Amino acid sequence: MNIARFVPPHRVLMGPGPSDVSPRVLQALGQPTIGHLDPYFIGMMDEIKTLLQYAFQTQNPFTIAISAPGSAGMEACFVNLIEPGETVIVCRNGVFGDRMRENVERCGGLCIMVDDEWGAPVSPEKLEQALKENPQASIVAFVHAETSTGVLSDAKTLAELAQKYNCLSIVDAVTSLGGVPLLVDEWGLDAVYSGSQKCLSCVPGLSPVTFSSRALEKMQNRTSKVQSWFLDQSLILGYWTGETQRSYHHTAPVNSLYALHESLLLLKDEGIERVWQRHRDMHLLLKNKLEAIGIKFLVDASCRLPQLNAVAVPEGLHDPDVRKALLKEYNLEIGAGLGILAGKAWRIGLMGYSARKENVLLCASALKEVCSAPFRKTAE
Amino acid sequence: MNIARFVPPHRVLMGPGPSDVSPRVLQALGQPTIGHLDPYFIGMMDEIKTLLQYAFQTQNPFTIAISAPGSAGMEACFVNLIEPGETVIVCRNGVFGDRMRENVERCGGLCIMVDDEWGAPVSPEKLEQALKENPQASIVAFVHAETSTGVLSDAKTLAELAQKYNCLSIVDAVTSLGGVPLLVDEWGLDAVYSGSQKCLSCVPGLSPVTFSSRALEKMQNRTSKVQSWFLDQSLILGYWTGETQRSYHHTAPVNSLYALHESLLLLKDEGIERVWQRHRDMHLLLKNKLEAIGIKFLVDASCRLPQLNAVAVPEGLHDPDVRKALLKEYNLEIGAGLGILAGKAWRIGLMGYSARKENVLLCASALKEVCSAPFRKTAE
Repeated sequence: MNIARFVPPHRVLMGPGPSDVSPRVLQALGQPTIGHLDPYFIGMMDEIKTLLQYAFQTQNPFTIAISAPGSAGMEACFVNLIEPGETVIVCRNGVFGDRMRENVERCGGLCIMVDDEWGAPVSPEKLEQALKENPQASIVAFVHAETSTGVLSDAKTLAELAQKYNCLSIVDAVTSLGGVPLLVDEWGLDAVYSGSQKCLSCVPGLSPVTFSSRALEKMQNRTSKVQSWFLDQSLILGYWTGETQRSYHHTAPVNSLYALHESLLLLKDEGIERVWQRHRDMHLLLKNKLEAIGIKFLVDASCRLPQLNAVAVPEGLHDPDVRKALLKEYNLEIGAGLGILAGKAWRIGLMGYSARKENVLLCASALKEVCSAPFRKTAE
Repeated sequence: MNIARFVPPHRVLMGPGPSDVSPRVLQALGQPTIGHLDPYFIGMMDEIKTLLQYAFQTQNPFTIAISAPGSAGMEACFVNLIEPGETVIVCRNGVFGDRMRENVERCGGLCIMVDDEWGAPVSPEKLEQALKENPQASIVAFVHAETSTGVLSDAKTLAELAQKYNCLSIVDAVTSLGGVPLLVDEWGLDAVYSGSQKCLSCVPGLSPVTFSSRALEKMQNRTSKVQSWFLDQSLILGYWTGETQRSYHHTAPVNSLYALHESLLLLKDEGIERVWQRHRDMHLLLKNKLEAIGIKFLVDASCRLPQLNAVAVPEGLHDPDVRKALLKEYNLEIGAGLGILAGKAWRIGLMGYSARKENVLLCASALKEVCSAPFRKTAE
């Protein structure tokens, strides 16, 4: 066994996440570990709640970070809000809508699927039709920003429909939080989960989550126990929000939470509207640069995510070779297509700290070089 | 909202975990993030598997780190190996045995409890009796090192009994891994989980897990789907061990895995037998120092954990005041009693990087000062 210390190469991360992490966040991350019941740490957790409320644009008291990646945040929403036998309407227009279905089924819920094309947003008309046909449904689940296709759906309208038909909404905001407007209170979203490694540009491994009072009420009136002990949010309530004494649940990922605190502070200091605008600006810059070299967007401009640009792999290019060359020659990571888009699309992330002019220029010029004929031969 | 950058105080961590993290591990943690599908990262994951096999003393190919804390590692073992209606014998001699019961019940398993006193090890005789009385049982679950009481149980004998009666064993090694001998292959343990923040002295948030071929076989022959998508290890198999291409499951906690790699390298470089010996040596040193100032151990010497010393709070002292004074005046954290031991016991950790002479001396001398009468008045 001959294993040496690991020193990662220095990459520019322009895939679907993790995004580039600011040196300030890395510095916060590497600070000495303290106990998870230390008064200083508990004070920091309270600040994280406040900062997350700002990021989610909510006053929900139950706004926390799950101690695991976004897929655990997703599962936390489903296992706490669904009881066996309940009907859940799941909107699916990409990989992550399908993962929602997996979650519902594993909770013993009954799924009604509302399908839209990959690359199109969720259709409010189809959702309303499904709500009309299934008055027994109690929950509507949809993805705000589909990471697999780069499509933004109209969360406000979808949530209004859910409310109109007396359903709670579960919303995947993994890629949207901190990248495009997400107004949890104004739009009346009920359970929203995200990930630390996308537009917040924190290290991967945490999942910010917020529950409305309606979601909390449903959770607290359950007749069956939540099937997951680790993700049972009624136990987490005492851990993150106990007034007098925090009840021990699990050991919090102390250092990752240092990093989340710092990344949320960066968001607050820049101002969330300015952050949204920066994502739009960098997206337009990238779009102009890419179109100038003949690279086409897959998603209609009306529903494009500025922070995740799905483009077609140009004719005659071998997707893995191009990505390999970008990584090897320029230390630049872009994302492959996922699911039915594998081999056909690239996903270029401009998330959080990655959304900077220098990255846009690097990406466009490196792609131009790699896609040019002489280089293609070398790459093959 | 007036929130500043968070700068933690510099503590000495001698509680039940997290333990002190070596500066080398913190430095590894703070390195720039790379993508979770980057070839360099995948190479590092392979090294982590090899290093974890060494730490667990196993050749099990399925030896990985779950992307969440030890309680998720626990849940991963139970949800993957239990199908609804199965009978599971759970040995309970502290808080974490009871958490196992919670897990079994939430999987739809039927629990047979084998109870021992808090502060005593699991009784092999009682376990054998339960196995005789319940021939339908398919799994035996027990805690190797009870973090709530500081007691070591005889995992070898308990696992042999499980095998004798045709049961798989699920073993909580959260506090034992890297602190006392744990010989997964030699003892024939089937599913073993641990935590990163105890004797490995990595940051909290990861759960090393290893499954024997018998455990994998049982998992692969399930007739029902695992109730958790996030913890479904059949999906993780392709992520951690895919031969040709890693299939995407979730975004790995990249930086925490840098830290785990480094902490496992420290373990390997020191040598696991020497690490076990250091824990024993530091425990004996602490024991002598504490007994010299009249502090008594709660657990019989025959089954004491060197890495977690449960001692009685001396008569006339107010537990929270003493711990508060240690933290405030000396930046020293020790652990409170848990469950029925709350207020009556302290748990003094000597785990991993915390198990150093300077810490033993600090702890003993600080306790001596804080427990002395004049200081007690100040603390009250």
